[in-house]
Order: sequence, then structure tokens, then C-alpha cells
Amino acid sequence: MATHFERQLEELHVQIITMGSLCEKVISLSNRAIRGDKCIQEIFDTDKEIDTKEREIENLCMRILLHQQPVARDLREVSAALKMISDMERIGDQASDIADLSKFIEENHVQIPELIGKMAEMTVGMVTESVDAFVKRDLDLCRKVIDDDDQVDDAFNQIKEELAELMYQNLDAKAGLDLLMTAKYMERIGDHAVNIAEWVEYAITGVHRNNEHQLGGH
Amino acid sequence: MATHFERQLEELHVQIITMGSLCEKVISLSNRAIRGDKCIQEIFDTDKEIDTKEREIENLCMRILLHQQPVARDLREVSAALKMISDMERIGDQASDIADLSKFIEENHVQIPELIGKMAEMTVGMVTESVDAFVKRDLDLCRKVIDDDDQVDDAFNQIKEELAELMYQNLDAKAGLDLLMTAKYMERIGDHAVNIAEWVEYAITGVHRNNEHQLGGH
Repeated sequence: MATHFERQLEELHVQIITMGSLCEKVISLSNRAIRGDKCIQEIFDTDKEIDTKEREIENLCMRILLHQQPVARDLREVSAALKMISDMERIGDQASDIADLSKFIEENHVQIPELIGKMAEMTVGMVTESVDAFVKRDLDLCRKVIDDDDQVDDAFNQIKEELAELMYQNLDAKAGLDLLMTAKYMERIGDHAVNIAEWVEYAITGVHRNNEHQLGGH
Repeated sequence: MATHFERQLEELHVQIITMGSLCEKVISLSNRAIRGDKCIQEIFDTDKEIDTKEREIENLCMRILLHQQPVARDLREVSAALKMISDMERIGDQASDIADLSKFIEENHVQIPELIGKMAEMTVGMVTESVDAFVKRDLDLCRKVIDDDDQVDDAFNQIKEELAELMYQNLDAKAGLDLLMTAKYMERIGDHAVNIAEWVEYAITGVHRNNEHQLGGH
């Protein structure tokens, strides 16, 4: 029979999966919004749902920490979850920022660089996989996510070059700046997915690759 | 005589003040780097110091949570600290992003919009005041920080207009895009200062303005 702690951890997994799905949804929506789809309100609503989910998960984590006083790997898993949801919440914010910009982009009827759509696809995949890695404690999968981000970064740099080129020709400067910001937000979403994956890695291995994170370890 | 808990809280305050000072330093440095000052390495080093400080404070908070099991306002103060340092850490990241860009900006010998310097000054002030508000539990001061961000946002929008105008004339498109990104990073730093101030407000009042945060409250 599962202990109370195991059931709470199971609930935590379910909640994180739900929050991850909302993040994937909001990224896809933001990519549609810049193409003129009427989904800006849906993006803002989803962002709010993500915020609510963050609070719920925070409460659950704090309850687990205070009442179960977990140690070692269990403690790391809860600490990692607290960090992960903070990055997930920011993905919602970035998507809302894209939604804000999409109003201007659509007005100008500019051609959207194809690579922006590609960035959206890639980051959705990274979020899916990092959550998957957390639930399945799959070290290879979270390392794949971390590596995948190079492609997202490359795409951003390529878009920047492309936009500068288009602006030398005839792309309106304001439209160019808005499109650059959109690509930048997508790139930031990729960074957040990497942060999530790095916390999953920490939960599994006990070592955070950027530094010797030892949350509550002494 | 101070209790063990009071001494730990006092230590938490000191650590947060130190981390805040590092943030102020890194913002000022990034503003100098885009003007050609040779301080890029110092920015990266300070960013690393900020990361280390975050870990130290995290450890302290987790120790307090696990061993003291604080409730009510004390619990909120520790929870708020955990959130604040996450935003402070990101200020270091944004400054490093500016440092990365500054290499290209300096190469191009472009004129830096004056308002970018203004944004740096304003955000430094916001960080100082939000940390001050935390330590002194000063509600008015943290609300001032939240309000001040409007000026930072206005500055960003004005810079965007200015850059578009300059690009219509003769500013190189790539340089324009880099300067826009620099202003955007400064604007993000302002957002993080607001997040910090909002957590201070939560620590004092028990209510988070964006939503009914009730960390560990039930």
C-alpha cells in the first residue's frame, strides 16, 4: 500500500503534468496569434490558469515539506518541483508577451519568418520531454532537452540575421523590432525548458550542473 | 535575548542585503559595458557570485523551514525570501546577456540612447528599495517600487520608437536590434525588481497582489 507521502508525490506528478500541458498549449497558441489567429484572449486565460496551477503546486510542496520533512532524494524531488513551476510560470508570461506583440505584428501584415514556427515546435517538445523526464526519472531524456536548446538558440541567431537582411531591403523597422522580440521570447521559453530539465537532473542525481546545489542538504 | 529563529532571520536579512548589493553592482556594470568599459569579465564574475549567494540563501531558508517549522508571518517571510532570490538571480543573468551584446555594440561604435542609462539607474534604485523594504518591513516603500516600474516600461517603449526612427535614417539594422535587446534586458530587470517588491508586500500583508498566494497556509 502506498504511504501518505507516496500518494502526495503522485499527486505532485499529476499536477506538474497538468501544468506542463498548459505550457505547451500556451506556446502553440502564441505561435498562432502572430499569424493572425484570434486567440489572444485564450492566451491570457491560459496564462492565468498556469499562475493558479503554480500556486496549487506550491501549496502542495510546502505541505509536503512541512508535514513529511522528506530527506535525500524525496526532498530533492520536492525542491526541484518548486523550482520547475517557477520556470513554467514564466513560460506563460513569455507567451503573453508574444500575444501583446501579435496585435502589432498582425496589423502590419508582415511575413513571419518560418523559423519562429520551428522555435515554437521545438520548445513545446522540450517542455513535454522535461516533464516526462521528471515523472519517469529519466536522466537521458532531461539531458536531451538540455542539448536541444542549442538548436533553439541557433534559430534565434538566424532569425536576427534574416531580419537585419530584410530591414536592409524593405521590412519596416518597427515590424522588424517586433518580430525580433517575438523570436527572443521563444528563445527565452527554450531557456526555461532547459532550467526545468536541469532541475529534473538535480532531482535524480543530487547535483545541479551549474553549481553544487545542495538544497536543504545540511 | 534573541531566539535561534530570530538569529537565523537576522542572518537571512544580511544575506539578502548582500545579494541585493551584488545585483545593483551588476546592473551598473552592464550599463558601463555597452559604453565600452572593459568590465565584461567582472560582470560574468559578479553573476557567478550572485548564483553562489542564491544557493547559500536557499540552504539557509530550507534549514529554517525544516528545523523551525515557522508559521504565519515568519513562514511568509522565509517563503518570500525564497522567491525574491530567484528574481535576483535572474537580474544577474540579464546583466550577463547585456555583457554578451555589449561586445557587438562596442564594435559598431554606435551612439547609445541616453534613456538606456536612465533605465539602469532606475532599476538599481528599485532593487535597493525593494531589499530595504524587506528588511524594514516597509509597505509604502515596496509599493513605490511597484509603481516606479511604469517609468522603466515607458523608457523601453520610447527607446523602441527612437531606434525605429534612427533606423529609418541611417542606424545599421543589426546595431538597432542589439540596442533594442539591451533595452529589453533592462526592462526585464525592472520586472524582476517588481516581483521582489511584490513578494515583500506578500511577506508583510499575507496577500500577493497578483493572486491569492497562500504559501503553506493550509
